[in-house]
Amino acid sequence: MQSIEKYQKAFISYLENYVSLKEPNNLYEPIHYILGLGGKRLRPVLTLITTDIFDGDYKQALDAALSVEVFHNFSLIHDDIMDDAPLRRGKLTVHEKWDINTGILSGDAMLIMAYQLFESYNPNTFQSLAKLFSKTAIQVCEGQQYDIDFETRDDVTIPEYLKMIEYKTAVLVGAAMKMGAIVASASERNQDGIYEYGKNLGTAFQLKDDYLDAFGDQKSFGKQVGGDIIENKKTYLFLKAQEFSEASDSQLLNDLYSSQLIDVSDKVETVKTIFQRSGAADATKQAISDFTGKAFSILKDLQISEDNKLLLKQFGEQLMNRAV
Amino acid sequence: MQSIEKYQKAFISYLENYVSLKEPNNLYEPIHYILGLGGKRLRPVLTLITTDIFDGDYKQALDAALSVEVFHNFSLIHDDIMDDAPLRRGKLTVHEKWDINTGILSGDAMLIMAYQLFESYNPNTFQSLAKLFSKTAIQVCEGQQYDIDFETRDDVTIPEYLKMIEYKTAVLVGAAMKMGAIVASASERNQDGIYEYGKNLGTAFQLKDDYLDAFGDQKSFGKQVGGDIIENKKTYLFLKAQEFSEASDSQLLNDLYSSQLIDVSDKVETVKTIFQRSGAADATKQAISDFTGKAFSILKDLQISEDNKLLLKQFGEQLMNRAV
Repeated sequence: MQSIEKYQKAFISYLENYVSLKEPNNLYEPIHYILGLGGKRLRPVLTLITTDIFDGDYKQALDAALSVEVFHNFSLIHDDIMDDAPLRRGKLTVHEKWDINTGILSGDAMLIMAYQLFESYNPNTFQSLAKLFSKTAIQVCEGQQYDIDFETRDDVTIPEYLKMIEYKTAVLVGAAMKMGAIVASASERNQDGIYEYGKNLGTAFQLKDDYLDAFGDQKSFGKQVGGDIIENKKTYLFLKAQEFSEASDSQLLNDLYSSQLIDVSDKVETVKTIFQRSGAADATKQAISDFTGKAFSILKDLQISEDNKLLLKQFGEQLMNRAV
Repeated sequence: MQSIEKYQKAFISYLENYVSLKEPNNLYEPIHYILGLGGKRLRPVLTLITTDIFDGDYKQALDAALSVEVFHNFSLIHDDIMDDAPLRRGKLTVHEKWDINTGILSGDAMLIMAYQLFESYNPNTFQSLAKLFSKTAIQVCEGQQYDIDFETRDDVTIPEYLKMIEYKTAVLVGAAMKMGAIVASASERNQDGIYEYGKNLGTAFQLKDDYLDAFGDQKSFGKQVGGDIIENKKTYLFLKAQEFSEASDSQLLNDLYSSQLIDVSDKVETVKTIFQRSGAADATKQAISDFTGKAFSILKDLQISEDNKLLLKQFGEQLMNRAV
C-alpha cells in the first residue's frame, strides 16, 4: 500500500504551511515545535483516506485532518505535564524545554486552533465536525481522568479499563475517520459505520501497544520494552493476570507492583513470566484479535465498493501487523 | 436599573441547572466548584441584555451567555495555576483545593464545554458564535502571554500595555455583547458596533481596575488595595509615572519595583505619591474617561431606539461608577 505515503506527504506539506511563527513568539514557538516533532501522522492520514473512500476529494479534508493532528498534539502537551514526562519522540517535552505555564497556555491555544480549522467548511459541515470534535475531545479528557484515577485504585475491572482506553485513545481514531466521511458527505449510516470501524481498530491498536510494551522486540518497538511494568501501569495484561492467577502469583504480582526496591530487569522478567503462565498474554492476543475482527465485520455493512472495503481491511491489517 | 437583577437571576438559575455532577467525579467536581464561586456574572448578563436590546428574546441567549461564563472560568483556573494564586473570590483556587493536574484537565474540559453550549443554535448561528468565540479565546491566550512576557521586560510601551489589556480582558466583553446581537439576528453593522462598545468599555473597566488597585477605598474594593504595587505589576499607572517622572523619581520607582526588602506599606505610600505628583494618576483617570467616551460615542451609530441607547449608556455608567 504505497498509497498511504501519498496521503502522508500531502498532509505533511499542508502542515508545514500551517505552522508559521506568529506573535507572541513565546506562545506560538512551542506549538511550532511540537507539531514539528514528527510521528506517523496516523490520525490525519485516516481522515484523508476516508474522504477518498467515500468518493470525496481528500484535499477538501486537509483542514479537518489538521484539526485532528493539532488536537492530538494539544493532548500530548497537557498529558506530558500531568505525567511529568521528560521526553516525547526522543526530544524534550514542551514543559521541559520551556516551562509548565508555557505548556498549559500553548496547549490551550492549540485546542482553540483545532476548532478554527473547521471554519473553512460551510455552516452545516462546520457544525457536524465541531459537534463530533467536542464530543470526542470531552471523552479524551474523561479517559485521561479515568487513567489518573486508576493509578490509585486496586479494584479496576476489565470493562472499566476498556472504557478508559476507548475514551483516551480509540474514539479519536473513530472521529478522525468519521470527519473524513462528513467532508465527503457520506450517508449517516456510512458515517456511523466508519466511526465504529475506527473505534474498534483504535481499541485493538491500544491493546496491541499494551502487549508490545511487555513482549515487543526492543529494536522495532519505539519505547522502552517493559516501561509499563516498571511504571506499575495496570494494563490489560496486568488486570487479566490478576484475574487468572493463583493466589500466590497474584500476591507476587501485587508485591512487585508496589515495591520500588526491586531490580528493574528482574522485575520485568518475573512479571512477564506471570503474564504468560497465567494466560494473560494469550487473553490479550485474543482481545486484540476480537476487536480487530469486530472492526472488519463492521466493514461488511458499509455501502461502499468491495475494492474500497478491501482497501480499508488492508489498511487495518497493516496497522495491526506491527511485530509481536 | 433593577432590570439587571432580572438578567442576573435568570442566568444564575440557568447556571444552577447546568452544573450537574457527572462521572468521572474528579473531572467534574472542580468545574462545579469554580462555577459556584459566584461573582457578578457581568459578561453573561451583558449577552442577555444585548439580545433584548436588539429585539431578541434573552431566553434564547442563555446558552451563549453560559458559554461566555464557562470560558471565563476556564481562563481563571488556568491563569490561577500560572500565577500561583492561592485564592479566588476568597476561596481556594482549584489547583490549591485539588492539584495542578486537576486544574489543567478540568480547565480543558470547560473550554470544550463552552463550545458545546453553541450546539443548541442552528448551523449558521452556531458557526457565527463559534468563530467569534475562537477568535476571542485565542486573543485571551495571547493577552495572557503578553502579560507574562511583560513581567520580565522593562521597555513595555503604553500601546503595548493597552493591547495586552484589550486582548486579556476587553475583547471578551465585546464578544459577550456581540454574541447577544448574533442570537438576536442583529445587522452586521449593529453587531460590529456593539462589539466596539463592549471592547472600549472593557478597556476603560480594566484601567479603572488598575486605578482602584492603588487609589480605591479598601472597604468597597474587593481585593487588597496596593496589590499591584506590592507585586511590582507594570500597570498603566506605573508606565505613565515612568514616562512623566523626573530622573530621580523614575530611579526611585525602579528601585522600589525591584527590591523585595522594603516595608510593604511604606512602599505602597511612596509609589502612590509618585503616581500622583508625576501626573500618572490624572492621566489614568483621563484614559478611563477617554475609553468610556469612545464607547458612548459608538452608541450614536447603532440602529436602535433612543430608549435602548439610553439603557446601554446607563448600564455603562453604572459599570464605571465604582467608587474612585
